[in-house]
Amino acid sequence: MAPLKSWLKIDSSSHFSLHNLPFGIISTTANPDPHPAVAIGDQVLDLAVFTAGNGFSALSIIQPHQAVFSRPTLNDFAALGRPMHRVVREYLQSVLLEDSPFPGVLKENSSLRHNALLSQKDCRMHMPMQITDYTDFYAGLHHAYNVGVLFRGPQNALQPNYKHLPVGYHGRAGSVVVSGTPIRRPNGQNLTDPAVKEPVLGPCRKLDMELELGCFVCKPSKMGDPVRIDDAADHLFGIVLMNDWSARDIQAWEYVPLGPFNSKNFGTSISAWVVLMDALEPFASTGLHNDMKTLPYLDEKGKKTHYDISLSVNLSTASGSSSTICKTTATNLLFSFPQMLAHHTVGGCPFNVGDVLGSGTISGESKSQKGCLLEQSENGKISITLDGGQDRMFLEDGDTITIGGVCDGEQGSLVGFGECSGKILPAIQIEP
Amino acid sequence: MAPLKSWLKIDSSSHFSLHNLPFGIISTTANPDPHPAVAIGDQVLDLAVFTAGNGFSALSIIQPHQAVFSRPTLNDFAALGRPMHRVVREYLQSVLLEDSPFPGVLKENSSLRHNALLSQKDCRMHMPMQITDYTDFYAGLHHAYNVGVLFRGPQNALQPNYKHLPVGYHGRAGSVVVSGTPIRRPNGQNLTDPAVKEPVLGPCRKLDMELELGCFVCKPSKMGDPVRIDDAADHLFGIVLMNDWSARDIQAWEYVPLGPFNSKNFGTSISAWVVLMDALEPFASTGLHNDMKTLPYLDEKGKKTHYDISLSVNLSTASGSSSTICKTTATNLLFSFPQMLAHHTVGGCPFNVGDVLGSGTISGESKSQKGCLLEQSENGKISITLDGGQDRMFLEDGDTITIGGVCDGEQGSLVGFGECSGKILPAIQIEP
Repeated sequence: MAPLKSWLKIDSSSHFSLHNLPFGIISTTANPDPHPAVAIGDQVLDLAVFTAGNGFSALSIIQPHQAVFSRPTLNDFAALGRPMHRVVREYLQSVLLEDSPFPGVLKENSSLRHNALLSQKDCRMHMPMQITDYTDFYAGLHHAYNVGVLFRGPQNALQPNYKHLPVGYHGRAGSVVVSGTPIRRPNGQNLTDPAVKEPVLGPCRKLDMELELGCFVCKPSKMGDPVRIDDAADHLFGIVLMNDWSARDIQAWEYVPLGPFNSKNFGTSISAWVVLMDALEPFASTGLHNDMKTLPYLDEKGKKTHYDISLSVNLSTASGSSSTICKTTATNLLFSFPQMLAHHTVGGCPFNVGDVLGSGTISGESKSQKGCLLEQSENGKISITLDGGQDRMFLEDGDTITIGGVCDGEQGSLVGFGECSGKILPAIQIEP
Repeated sequence: MAPLKSWLKIDSSSHFSLHNLPFGIISTTANPDPHPAVAIGDQVLDLAVFTAGNGFSALSIIQPHQAVFSRPTLNDFAALGRPMHRVVREYLQSVLLEDSPFPGVLKENSSLRHNALLSQKDCRMHMPMQITDYTDFYAGLHHAYNVGVLFRGPQNALQPNYKHLPVGYHGRAGSVVVSGTPIRRPNGQNLTDPAVKEPVLGPCRKLDMELELGCFVCKPSKMGDPVRIDDAADHLFGIVLMNDWSARDIQAWEYVPLGPFNSKNFGTSISAWVVLMDALEPFASTGLHNDMKTLPYLDEKGKKTHYDISLSVNLSTASGSSSTICKTTATNLLFSFPQMLAHHTVGGCPFNVGDVLGSGTISGESKSQKGCLLEQSENGKISITLDGGQDRMFLEDGDTITIGGVCDGEQGSLVGFGECSGKILPAIQIEP
């Protein structure tokens, strides 16, 4: 498909081509209340201003719902459902198209253009959704295998349940933050000297990141009502990049028998722009082959429900060096988001609009494709040499991790996520 | 202390004496929008009506905040903080006192009395709080020990971390429901034949309950800011009874390595009336002795932060039999709610008003004090004989579990929780 051309100037390397149009929540000096916008090139279309300026005049179906474009989160827009997301996104595409069928709406409306099209760098980004519940899965097969090898050896690397169901745990909704929010190194209990068996309290010494995708739910499901695998796609709003920051030493001490807790709940970062499922459809792909036959409630019958997204992790240090420490693709998952949702609800767990599913760490097979430092450093045994010569096993104060992601498309029609970044601040001193 | 007497007729066996005044959310035929009320004897004081009728005329400090009494949850009232909860509760006590200093407010105001005092049986109860995040701990030492013995034997019953920190996991906020809500038996993956290693999908065959307390947080804390143990009590709003329904067969298959998931998220019940921390203060007690020295951030310096609450579990069957299957006390906890909060936040996990902490299953040492069927039946090895002769190892369809709780006080001044009940509905049939 030839790239769609806009009357707006859009750099051909932009993640936010006319093929994308991701939704986010911005504020500006002129309008400091967070409200929705769509990213286009290096600009945004301010949807509150666009709506107030009668921008949706040619789309009657959205008119009873236009209040969603002045809300502080995207939840109410998401709740309108996938058919409405499709109509709104395609309408905005048509408004921005070089040969727009509605030139009077924006292209030839200089006043609205002036007010509604803002430079991205003048916008502050906010949490795109109010997250109601957050679940983190573990669907990255290579990651689970690599971690299993580190702790249990290659014979027992994967637990017996691993290929039969998407393993997951409930995360902390309240500690999910938008890209750019600094992350403070957590204090926590850890066992410095296993021989003594007495834990100490102190700053995490194995601070890690995890390369993940997050997927927002847009359709509620009631307690007791499973979402069938064939219906699951209708429940998905869009995808963001996610960094599930992890404190490996705290995790090792606390996690038996109920799973990770303080090792995860000090912060989880997501990218600011939600790429809608429809924008990702052209990049639909299969995930990793599952050599176990899944039970019928997880059987997607060959449907392509993964996405071919090139992912990267950059580590920049306080001293200014910048290194790409991981490159992989989002197809390195054994279970898809529809499978995660079908499994999550099979026992009747209810869902609200704004619930988010994390994929689990996405790693490829080779070392440079490993999506966390625990894997790359083999739990602190092997140094990673950064550009400029510094070594890392885990993150140091002042380090910034930036996850990037873009679908494998051609220049001029890129569908990307922007970035998900966070800088490590030093731990606070706990009073003696 | 002699019981406080009210001009209202209150049965001396009522959980809702003048010493209690718990807060909840009701609706009535006349006012179907959920709104706050206080329980008193077998009646409630409708706070929306009381406020509209100028009931707070003699309490100027609450007047700028009176809108909290028309909200659909108690979150906004909770957010006013513990000093305000104290003032409001003591004012309502004084209004209801036989020798009320404010007789004109209600006692001698027949119109407001008629409109604001309703029979509890005419009120529908709703979720008292909008739960933002739900954490379930595992602080019942005897429970953890008993379960550990079942799965790992007496030598390794408690994990090495157990006495050093309150072990916990993130639960599903969206599946916490108010007492009276039926609970549908979940379907899920389980391993019927471990030799085959192929799981099947089907209705849970080891459906269990867990006797717990839940404690609501009323004061937010920011990401990165720990709540000190000495400040933690100021963050606690009140306590409810909690039943953390559990699917033991699903749990056994799914829980490695990330903890319980679908085995818990199909439903958690709480009692409808939130007993404020101040009402519990006269019953403050110590918990179980910890023979490990806790780290300073968990050291309560001997403060009494547990409560002497007599707890019971009743199982009534579809055929009409009713049996008390457990009697224990809430002092059977190794860690208190202030310790749970201090630990939960030590790494910087943020808290919102409406977050809830579950204590974990509360069991005493003897068989009749065990707070779940997994313990009582030794994971399905020993039958429990109910009144009327039926046997149980786990719950059957049509069974109703009712948790009761009341502080050890004298008749006429009881501080109790009412009940937390839920009836098991049969699993839905999953399409083949």
